[in-house]
Amino acid sequence: MPRDTNCVFCRIVAAELPSATVYVDEDIVAFLDVAPLAEGHLLVIPRGHYRDVSGMPPGVFAKVTEAIPILGRALLHVTQAEGFNVLCNQGRAAGQAVDHVHFHLIPRRTGDSLGYRWNAGQYAAGRPAQLAAAYQAAIAIHQ
Amino acid sequence: MPRDTNCVFCRIVAAELPSATVYVDEDIVAFLDVAPLAEGHLLVIPRGHYRDVSGMPPGVFAKVTEAIPILGRALLHVTQAEGFNVLCNQGRAAGQAVDHVHFHLIPRRTGDSLGYRWNAGQYAAGRPAQLAAAYQAAIAIHQ
Repeated sequence: MPRDTNCVFCRIVAAELPSATVYVDEDIVAFLDVAPLAEGHLLVIPRGHYRDVSGMPPGVFAKVTEAIPILGRALLHVTQAEGFNVLCNQGRAAGQAVDHVHFHLIPRRTGDSLGYRWNAGQYAAGRPAQLAAAYQAAIAIHQ
Repeated sequence: MPRDTNCVFCRIVAAELPSATVYVDEDIVAFLDVAPLAEGHLLVIPRGHYRDVSGMPPGVFAKVTEAIPILGRALLHVTQAEGFNVLCNQGRAAGQAVDHVHFHLIPRRTGDSLGYRWNAGQYAAGRPAQLAAAYQAAIAIHQ
């Protein structure tokens, strides 16, 4: 399993750093974010060190996400939130602060001033079909 | 497989409505969001109709996420973005607009004015341990 001895999340996985852990299995560790956006904000991380989602073996990535429904149910029960966001940031431009793949589970309530900045645009006619063709070609290469 | 004949995403899965589809397999359909936050913004949905992540069988949920690394690589290739967000909203308070579980893959660039509103707080001493114990108990019930 890949490991980076300087990575704070690898050190949490190895129990070299303390964390308020809520769930562990063979593939993941889930614990409370120490700088929460809302009470009960969770982090879910793979035991192995992967910087990027796009660099993970798909099967390993799926194992990281498998517990999210159960963790989400527990989050709603514990925090009594109305809903939650599941969020993973890849790259500094996307808000990634620790270079070890992690999912945030963020409890949400109406009027809590959290959430994603939603400034939706629209496509020119024909552009979606062009992009879809480019995606299909890229997926055929990268799969 | 659960289906809701009034659900716009179920109708896309059934090809009753058009979409700019980039990837399909036995478990998911991935297509361009018609109201993109950035060019190349993708949606990934399970073929089956599930309103909530927290109501999905974990194995079915993992199948929905399995293609995300490949789709992320293709997104970086096609859009030349610096990174991306993987986002799923559960509940109106969390920004869910269509009641069929969906992941957003949102291309990101420095200074693009997108991203999550990040107003982190902190816990009083002892509170994380209390919450972690509550989570552990809830997970034992809900698993």
